[in-house]
Amino acid sequence: MAVSDPRAGEAMCPYRLVLEHVTSRWGVLVLIQLLDGPHRFSELRRAVGRVGRAVSEKMLTQTLQTLERDGLVHRDAKPVIPPRVDYSLTDLGREAAEQVRSLAEWTRERMADVEKARLAYDEARQP
Amino acid sequence: MAVSDPRAGEAMCPYRLVLEHVTSRWGVLVLIQLLDGPHRFSELRRAVGRVGRAVSEKMLTQTLQTLERDGLVHRDAKPVIPPRVDYSLTDLGREAAEQVRSLAEWTRERMADVEKARLAYDEARQP
Repeated sequence: MAVSDPRAGEAMCPYRLVLEHVTSRWGVLVLIQLLDGPHRFSELRRAVGRVGRAVSEKMLTQTLQTLERDGLVHRDAKPVIPPRVDYSLTDLGREAAEQVRSLAEWTRERMADVEKARLAYDEARQP
Repeated sequence: MAVSDPRAGEAMCPYRLVLEHVTSRWGVLVLIQLLDGPHRFSELRRAVGRVGRAVSEKMLTQTLQTLERDGLVHRDAKPVIPPRVDYSLTDLGREAAEQVRSLAEWTRERMADVEKARLAYDEARQP
């Protein structure tokens, strides 16, 4: 997920890097979560932690910045006191998120097959 | 991509972990490549290196083992001299690979929009 030199990656094979952003561990969860509507940072962090692993503030910030720069997520900082920032999907982001969600749903539906395969794999390797 | 304790992950949210395997940097490329038909290890390594970054032997081995254990990739070791090992998609793997490829194609088609968004993002942040 971490890319040491993003510009090198962009020059080499630009779309691969966007695919990595969209399919990154937190990218996947953020996109799916935002399909439910706009979220504040803390809401998003809680929601992502419920589905997957807990995410650090730093990782979530980086993920959101990357998705915002790619034009997938919109960051809306409202000039109110206390400050309020909402994150939502752009039209482009919604297209990506719907595909990612459909892949996630496929995975969920196929878990029984995956677990059967794992059992067979592990049994074949037992002493 | 690396998971410190896979069993903990599986207990917590099993399908999330499979989704991580399918969407991992090398998982994505391996699945898409195998849609073209069975590959030997060295062919796969070369092909994956052409699309994305070069992949180490160790990482490719781990990726293939993970996908094989999940029932997505079939490993066929032929009893010939010199030994010959072919990797191919299972039916389950083909379903995953087709979704991943369609996401990759979407990303490629949308690169112009992504690049426009990046330009606007970077310009808004220039001093």
